[in-house]
Amino acid sequence: MRPHITINAAMSADGKISTHKRIQVRISGDDDFIRVDTMRANADAVMVGIGTMLADNPSLTVKSGELRSKRKKRSGSGDPARIVVDSMARTPLDADIFKKGEGERIIAVCEKAPKGRIEALQHRGARILTAGDQQVDLAGLMSELKALGFDTLMVEGGATLNWSLISQGLVDEIYTYIGAMVLGGEDAPTLVDGTGFGDNTDAVGLELMSVERMDDGVLIQWHIVESV
Amino acid sequence: MRPHITINAAMSADGKISTHKRIQVRISGDDDFIRVDTMRANADAVMVGIGTMLADNPSLTVKSGELRSKRKKRSGSGDPARIVVDSMARTPLDADIFKKGEGERIIAVCEKAPKGRIEALQHRGARILTAGDQQVDLAGLMSELKALGFDTLMVEGGATLNWSLISQGLVDEIYTYIGAMVLGGEDAPTLVDGTGFGDNTDAVGLELMSVERMDDGVLIQWHIVESV
Repeated sequence: MRPHITINAAMSADGKISTHKRIQVRISGDDDFIRVDTMRANADAVMVGIGTMLADNPSLTVKSGELRSKRKKRSGSGDPARIVVDSMARTPLDADIFKKGEGERIIAVCEKAPKGRIEALQHRGARILTAGDQQVDLAGLMSELKALGFDTLMVEGGATLNWSLISQGLVDEIYTYIGAMVLGGEDAPTLVDGTGFGDNTDAVGLELMSVERMDDGVLIQWHIVESV
Repeated sequence: MRPHITINAAMSADGKISTHKRIQVRISGDDDFIRVDTMRANADAVMVGIGTMLADNPSLTVKSGELRSKRKKRSGSGDPARIVVDSMARTPLDADIFKKGEGERIIAVCEKAPKGRIEALQHRGARILTAGDQQVDLAGLMSELKALGFDTLMVEGGATLNWSLISQGLVDEIYTYIGAMVLGGEDAPTLVDGTGFGDNTDAVGLELMSVERMDDGVLIQWHIVESV
């Protein structure tokens, strides 16, 4: 038992989600911005990995006033719960997820996370979920999130979290916006990094659900089916 | 003055052109195979980098008998000229480009390439083009190819050659087949590797020419327009 999990990401035509300098690039346009905002408003929770938190400091809030007030009427908060997968509790206390928006902030840590950091984050208003010994046990975390009533989860990066989730069979759908640019770079983060599959007998198979032009690029929706 | 240059590549949904073990994966299906074969038959020359040559040993021949005979009638050879960008003349003498197909084989080297290797390749029937001092000067090579009568060039990999060509403004079009699988891997080669652009003011801008479902995936045609 776990939430329905959807990865959403924008990448360049060559599969990069940022430059090799980790500089965030506006890859998509206005229509895709609205699509992502809507997806966020409809999710019970959004999640990022600690790498994305430290590199981009995303607020993960719903931007549209209309979507916010609809969401608030429906569920009591204009924003979905915002979750950071953060084994060692390194999320900065002045992160924008704390400063902006409303609703729950959840930091998922492992047993080894320093107690002082945990207390400081709790003092900042974060709920701490502990799962796993040396690092966050994602399957365990997802069970706990489901038990807490989170039925839909939107994952907004980054490359390492995407790999961990996909390689552990914890993803149902992937939305990829492919932008009209080449970023290049063997060290630039891609949609899915981590170790990677060694050969195609391991690779995760997808089913193409939809493809459409959006802004200057392409939006693709994949469902995860099984190993190839 | 240079040929019209088109990059063609198949990548996974996360931008990988092979696994991190450099194991070649059948990413596309039968319809895309025919499309690539047709593109190859219509090109004056096809090109790969030495990395792809050593990893995959591609023959780069036209596979369809019908396309071969049409091409032969039109231009005297069933296959396009096959070119390896190979600064130090490392192309193996038993490579499939020598064993299979017909027409010119061209090895593009730099001044530092060992004379013995060059002679051995010439003995194998290869034409040697020398451009550049420490490594192949791609702009110079392209001028020379144009002067030799090559008007259209299809580049079939890999990630490093794609980067060198794109970052030097030597590409007109990119065809990307996006396959229904996730390969993952921070060390897996992507469509465009190399150093990469540091931020989006450097990034190469594309124009979306077409997008269509093909086999189980998506075929996208981009034109290179300018820096973003």
